[in-house]
Order: sequence, then C-alpha cells, then structure tokens
Amino acid sequence: MNTTPSTVRVSLGDRSYPILIGEGLLDQPRLLVPHLIQKRVAIVTNTTIAPIYLEQFTRGLEAEAIQTLAITLPDGEAFKTWETLNIVFDRLLEARCERNTTLIALGGGVIGDICGFAAATYQRGMPFIQVPTTLLAQVDSSVGGKTAINHPLGKNMIGAFYQPKLVLADTSSLDTLPDRELSAGIAEVIKYGLIRDLAFLQWLEDNMSRLLARDRGALAYAILRSCEHKAEVVAADERESGERALLNLGHTFGHAIESGLGYGEWLHGEAVAAGTVLAAELSARMGMLTESDVGRVRRIFESARLPIRAPKLGVARYLELMGHDKKVDAGRLRLVLLRALGSAFLTAQFPEDTLAEVLSDCTFDG
Amino acid sequence: MNTTPSTVRVSLGDRSYPILIGEGLLDQPRLLVPHLIQKRVAIVTNTTIAPIYLEQFTRGLEAEAIQTLAITLPDGEAFKTWETLNIVFDRLLEARCERNTTLIALGGGVIGDICGFAAATYQRGMPFIQVPTTLLAQVDSSVGGKTAINHPLGKNMIGAFYQPKLVLADTSSLDTLPDRELSAGIAEVIKYGLIRDLAFLQWLEDNMSRLLARDRGALAYAILRSCEHKAEVVAADERESGERALLNLGHTFGHAIESGLGYGEWLHGEAVAAGTVLAAELSARMGMLTESDVGRVRRIFESARLPIRAPKLGVARYLELMGHDKKVDAGRLRLVLLRALGSAFLTAQFPEDTLAEVLSDCTFDG
Repeated sequence: MNTTPSTVRVSLGDRSYPILIGEGLLDQPRLLVPHLIQKRVAIVTNTTIAPIYLEQFTRGLEAEAIQTLAITLPDGEAFKTWETLNIVFDRLLEARCERNTTLIALGGGVIGDICGFAAATYQRGMPFIQVPTTLLAQVDSSVGGKTAINHPLGKNMIGAFYQPKLVLADTSSLDTLPDRELSAGIAEVIKYGLIRDLAFLQWLEDNMSRLLARDRGALAYAILRSCEHKAEVVAADERESGERALLNLGHTFGHAIESGLGYGEWLHGEAVAAGTVLAAELSARMGMLTESDVGRVRRIFESARLPIRAPKLGVARYLELMGHDKKVDAGRLRLVLLRALGSAFLTAQFPEDTLAEVLSDCTFDG
Repeated sequence: MNTTPSTVRVSLGDRSYPILIGEGLLDQPRLLVPHLIQKRVAIVTNTTIAPIYLEQFTRGLEAEAIQTLAITLPDGEAFKTWETLNIVFDRLLEARCERNTTLIALGGGVIGDICGFAAATYQRGMPFIQVPTTLLAQVDSSVGGKTAINHPLGKNMIGAFYQPKLVLADTSSLDTLPDRELSAGIAEVIKYGLIRDLAFLQWLEDNMSRLLARDRGALAYAILRSCEHKAEVVAADERESGERALLNLGHTFGHAIESGLGYGEWLHGEAVAAGTVLAAELSARMGMLTESDVGRVRRIFESARLPIRAPKLGVARYLELMGHDKKVDAGRLRLVLLRALGSAFLTAQFPEDTLAEVLSDCTFDG
C-alpha cells in the first residue's frame, strides 16, 4: 500500500531538506528524481539489505532512466572503518563517479554513517540521500548530517557534519527488521521523550506493546514525532555547540560499552539503553531524579526488551573509554544528565566519586 | 627582522579569516593566540621542516603558555595518503586532543592538505591554522580551504572544503627553501597572471631574476598579490561551482603528469608548469592564442627554471588519467583554457582530436 508520505522539514538555510515518511516509498523512486543533479546514482548498502531491497530499488530507479551502481558492504558496526570506507572510494573511482553523482545510503545507521562520510569527502563533497531501513536510522541517525567512522580509540571519532539532500523513510522496510533491531531503534525514540517531551514518554509507555507488535499507526507516529524533535534540535544547533549535545543522553556511557565490549557485540541502541540507565542513576544520586523516576526509566527500556544492566568493565576502564568522548572539553568530561524526566542538560559539574560509584554499583557481570 | 605583517582578508561570512604575510612571523606566536579556543595546539609538520623550525616555533608558543604536541610526518607528495593521515588521527587520539584543540600545519602544500583534512574530520571538525613554509603553500594551497589526500586513482580525490582560522605566511622561511621548490611555487604565481592579471604577468616577466635571487621585496609583493587574487576568487566561489575552477589552469594535465609518473617524481608546481604549456598549446590550436602568446607562456616558465616539456605518457594514458579529474561532468572532460593571456575560462567544448594531437605532439621522452 502506497500512501502519501508525511513530510518533516530540516531548516538549515540553503542546506534545508525534507524527510519523507510513509509506507512503500522504496517503490516510488520518482520521489528521489527532483533531488538528483545527474541521472546517475551510486547506492551503498550491505549484505543483509541487498538481497531484500536492492533489486527492487534499483529497478525502480532504472525505470526512471537513472543509471545505478551498487556498492555492497559487509554488515555491522565492526565494519564502520577506514577499510570499508575505502571500498566505497575505490568503487566510486573505478566507475568514474563524479562530484555531481548522488550517493544513496540504503540501510541502517552504519551504512548511513559510512555512506554520508564518503559523500562528504569524495572529491571534496558529492550530494547524498539517506534511505534508512532500520528504525534507529529512521528516527535518529539518518537525520541531521552527522557522518563518521570509528577509530580503535573511539566511536565516530573521524567524520563530518554533512547534510543529505533528502531522507526517505519507508516504514514498510521495518517489516523485515529483526526484533532485536526494532528494540534498539526504540531506545533512541525513548530518548526524545526523556530529554525533551514528557508527554511523548507517557505515550510511549502507553503504546509500547503496539510498537513491539509493529502496529503501523503506532510506528508511523513514533517516527514522525522523533523526526520532528530531531529536525528542531538540528535546525537550532547543527554543529552541536549546545542543545544538540542533549541528543547524546546515555551515549557517553553507551559508547564506552560498545567500545569496551568490541564494536558489534551490543547494538548501539542497546548500549544507549543501558547507558541511559547509568545517566539516570547518576542524576538520582545527585538529587535530581527520584528513585521512582529511575524506576520509570528502567521500566520503559525493559518494556522495549532492551538491556538495562550495563556490563562491568571496571571503573578505570569506563573512565578511560569515556575520556575519548567528543564532548570532553579542556580535559573535563561532560555528561548529559536529567534534571527531571523530560528535561536534560549538559554539564561538567558532577562529583567524580559519585560517577565512580555508579560505574561500580550499577554495572553487572555477564 | 620582524616587521608588521601585511594582511589579506578572505571574506566568507562567519568563516572569514586573515592571511598575515611578513618576515619573522614564526617568531611572533602571539599573532596566533587570539585565534585559539584552547591553550593547546597540535603541530603537524614533516621530517624536513621539523629540524629547522619546530623547536623555535614550539618554544615560542610555550612561552605564551600554550601546550603543544608535535606530529612529524614523512616528507613528500608520495605520503599524502590514508596511512599518513591515520598517523595524525592516532596521535591526536592517544594524546586526547579535543575538538577545540587547534591543529597547526607547519610546512608546505602536502602538510597543509593532510593537516587540513585531518582537522576537517577529527571529531567532525576542529579548528586549524596554516603556517605555510614553502612559496607554493604561501601563494596558493594554504589559502581557500581545499584539503585532501591522494588516491591511487587520482590526486586530491578524497578531501573537504574546510577553512583555516588564520594563515601565517612567514617570508623568512623561504630562505631555507631549495631552489627547485622556489621555482615550483613561482609556477602557481605565474598562474594568477595568466588567468586573470596581465599586468602581473608583465611584472613577473620583468622581475623573475629578482624572485629567483630571493629578493625580499619582490617575493613579498608576489606573495601579497597572489593571496589577494586567491582571496578574491575563493570569496566569490568557495566550493568551486564556477570561477574557482580557473585556478586549475594546467592542473588537469599536471595531475595526470604527477599521477602518471608516480607522486613525488615531479613537484606539483613543475607538473603545473608543463601542464599549463599543454593548455596553452591547445588554446592556440583552437585559435584563441597566437604562437607568440604560447612562446611567452613557455618563456616565463622557462625563466623560472621550470619544465615546459610534458613527459610522453601516451595519449590514451593521459586521457585515462585526466578522466579522473574532479571537473569531469556527465562523463565529459572540462578544461581550463586561455582565450587570451590574462583571461581563462572553463569549457567542455574542445575538439577531442586536437587534444589528442597536443598530447602526442607536445610531449617528450625523458
């Protein structure tokens, strides 16, 4: 069923772009056509997505007289590396793609991040379009222009702010998403509620079972509301000099978990869920949240079938890993904490002892 | 002798910055201080420059209470690669440099390009300052925000437009520049005359012996005039959608020469000189320049002790290498040609046969 998509606009002057959200958008390649400079695209996807969507998507584009090149990468966070990025560059150069050829990211967050960074840097910048096929990518990573690859010493350490020309979120593609990835995406949806929208948090609590059952109406609403939040924050602070950092709730802890366990062990959304519980614990021990608030944070992640017990890595190892965070300023770690449910802030003012206690008391073996 | 520097401003809205040109600027680190966010910098340089300037420069900064980290790379175009770039990332991460730490490029064009690209992408962008120590970098590559590394299939294929916060051109650093590199820098100075300033071309013809003798007054004037031209062009067309492409006179041929012979065999400026002669030959065969004009182009490069005979790579190989140029659009090669001395234009309209003839007739063995 193809319906008229909903549109959310990201307002960034001459770099503004629309997010189209709807069912069956992958079957409507004409939606992309007005955004192409050349009738030529290169599609970056992975070995999981390619067998499901690539042929259908490519055929649709070719029916619009658009020449396509497919670049299929290995799947997973462990491949978000220089080496994989260079596969993209090699293929683009071999096929003589030009700086007006459009790069299309067809896949989840990893594909979007690598493809976006490739687009930002191939011939000093080529146009690109995000076609996110996971919930996490549709509600968060495909919007806002953050692109990156990982470095052994830290996640997303090498990258660029580079906006797409269009985001095309086909909600039908969630039909094939594994349950575990659906939950991981919901972690980032819950984030918007926790940092800036208590009413949405309440709605999520009331509708979690519908989301897990992939009720189309519930998913469409959750995606739309998330994109509206993301677009608003990005328009206000594109390069993360202030408010945008709040979208990183749970992420400093989460990145340490991902990096400490080895990329790909936990999904990003899983690490964010457990990391957000740590941020809530710290907020509570600093007197900002009640125990009941923390319980509510734990419960909503748990209801989304997400892990709420961060792994025990050792306090020193956590602090070392967290020290590579991009928000560190003049040697001082900065964290996103909650002053209340629905209200986050960024601060370097937290007792180091209390942080160490949280990293010790609230982490668990195996 | 420390004199008050001349200033040229690059006007790019909130990304505007000054170019300071003068003698002894490396001994005046206080010129940098107002442009630093943190009292911490990382200096990227190479094994040739480090023994001459690094200690003096570092000591000066430390006297201003600025913490420094030095990253010394191997010297030469052959090292403008992923591998070298990763050395910079590794060192920045190991030393926990932050996104407000300033990266300083102390060296020639290769250092400026690698360091600028590292700054553009480390933690999605950190501030950087250009301290060019070669004539080529002072008159061209340090200004305007083009950063890049090479790919085996093409020069400067991976990069970003990323402006520095400041360019500090110490003309005293040219005292230690090898003659061959001085000449290579003059190639880019001549370029400004050929593409947009006939009077400057005339001045260069009249003053070439002073430049080669490193007359300080003549060099200072040539650098200032070149930076004024570069700043004007970049302000009008930062991302090379039009006029900026004219700065690439001789470069499509030149890049093919550099790539065809292996990076580092010829200096960039040498390849540009021989490449510009090819562009002039093609312009003449298309009826735009007279034979006397072409002779004048040859003579000025020759008087600067630059090669004017492009190597014989074979027509097919030239065309293949030139086909990787970033100006290729919809499969069509575009070249900067001369409609007269002092007036360049970008075009895809040239007879392919004539180009092939030029690549055959005007190239030479050994």
